[in-house]
Amino acid sequence: MTARTGTHLVLGGARSGKSAFAERCVAETGLAPLYIATAQALDDEMTERIATHRARRGPAWTTIEAPADLAGTLSAEAGERRILLVDCLTLWLTNRMIAEADMDAEIDALVAAVAALNGPAILVANEVGLGIVPDNAMARRFRDHAGRLNQAIAARADTVTFIAAGLPLTLKG
Amino acid sequence: MTARTGTHLVLGGARSGKSAFAERCVAETGLAPLYIATAQALDDEMTERIATHRARRGPAWTTIEAPADLAGTLSAEAGERRILLVDCLTLWLTNRMIAEADMDAEIDALVAAVAALNGPAILVANEVGLGIVPDNAMARRFRDHAGRLNQAIAARADTVTFIAAGLPLTLKG
Amino acid sequence: MTARTGTHLVLGGARSGKSAFAERCVAETGLAPLYIATAQALDDEMTERIATHRARRGPAWTTIEAPADLAGTLSAEAGERRILLVDCLTLWLTNRMIAEADMDAEIDALVAAVAALNGPAILVANEVGLGIVPDNAMARRFRDHAGRLNQAIAARADTVTFIAAGLPLTLKG
Repeated sequence: MTARTGTHLVLGGARSGKSAFAERCVAETGLAPLYIATAQALDDEMTERIATHRARRGPAWTTIEAPADLAGTLSAEAGERRILLVDCLTLWLTNRMIAEADMDAEIDALVAAVAALNGPAILVANEVGLGIVPDNAMARRFRDHAGRLNQAIAARADTVTFIAAGLPLTLKG
Repeated sequence: MTARTGTHLVLGGARSGKSAFAERCVAETGLAPLYIATAQALDDEMTERIATHRARRGPAWTTIEAPADLAGTLSAEAGERRILLVDCLTLWLTNRMIAEADMDAEIDALVAAVAALNGPAILVANEVGLGIVPDNAMARRFRDHAGRLNQAIAARADTVTFIAAGLPLTLKG
Repeated sequence: MTARTGTHLVLGGARSGKSAFAERCVAETGLAPLYIATAQALDDEMTERIATHRARRGPAWTTIEAPADLAGTLSAEAGERRILLVDCLTLWLTNRMIAEADMDAEIDALVAAVAALNGPAILVANEVGLGIVPDNAMARRFRDHAGRLNQAIAARADTVTFIAAGLPLTLKG
């Protein structure tokens, strides 16, 4: 296990190259990768995006889906001999808001599961708070939850990297 | 007065942890803090947000409100034995646009007041220009004013810090 | 030719000061500047923005317009004794989407032209992926194209600088 593992939060914008960066970090560890997908293929656009990501990773990766119980999946799957890649926290957050879950409780449970991980993990998340204040209240709540989640995970991560135009900038670690 | 004081601009997105970071910077100086609030409690959402921030700061802080005449407040209140925390420049900008003020004159007057400060101050501002171009012209004007204000303050600040996921990145100083 | 030339991508948000920074980089080289404008003055707002930028650069600059065939213009104009400033890639992308061009082919051709440049160039681009997911599908496609273009150019650039509040942050180089 190198300095780049432990828990590593990879933060970036849409199409910033954050997933590809996270996958390279996983490959560099030499550990067996377990991909934890939070995306739900609810429409053609998401189905295509999921297929593109899956093709890039190739057949060596094991994939499981955790669109809802991400905390439980992390607790069950983490271990010293493998590395988890969660892509991404922000889609999980979206899923839980759509399901009208208690977001404070959900976020607290996920943060606790990340803090208790007993093996390396790379967590991908979107930064969504750097545009104009959204018109609708639901989007503002989403932005608030996403910011709170990112802060809480970053505080517990060993390494935090911000990605812009495919290039990494170390925020922590 | 340490290297972190003088004038310090803390820039970040929504729920990036910029206010909490700024409050920690204030606490580290050991100076008596004066909190200059620019928020106006015009609806329940803002009232709640103001109450959350106030509870976090605790009773040791003196708070004054300057939703409109921020330049005059800065000039009147600055001094060597206290530290000002303005939270935030972007809400002040919003207030002045809603009031249909002459924004070029308003921004010039605020920038001049910041350049003339005779004591330490920490100024919090939002970065709002990193999303898609907004549909409506008012939001585009707001984005232009906010960018121009942030650039002008950053040029005059001793220290500029960008905050993402609660973590600081030094842009200047 | 200094370390700051070769190909230099300057990335930033709206009104971040990225154009002014790019112009200073050009001036520091001492080479004859050729400004390649991608903006189209389709409305009053754009006409005013173009005039502001032109006034700031002053009469020493040669300007040509390349709102559509940017790849061809780069290939024709690059050379060791001058420096190109393209402002900006993102407006060119907008123009090609409005023209309903084949965006994958357009982006590939532009990236190939940048990779083959035989003289120094500074390329300005917007980061647009750090806000909330846009409501409309066209804006999401735009965001995807812009992110893919920025990543591809950044991978081939010698230097990549991110600008916030007028201040540079080196991502590469």
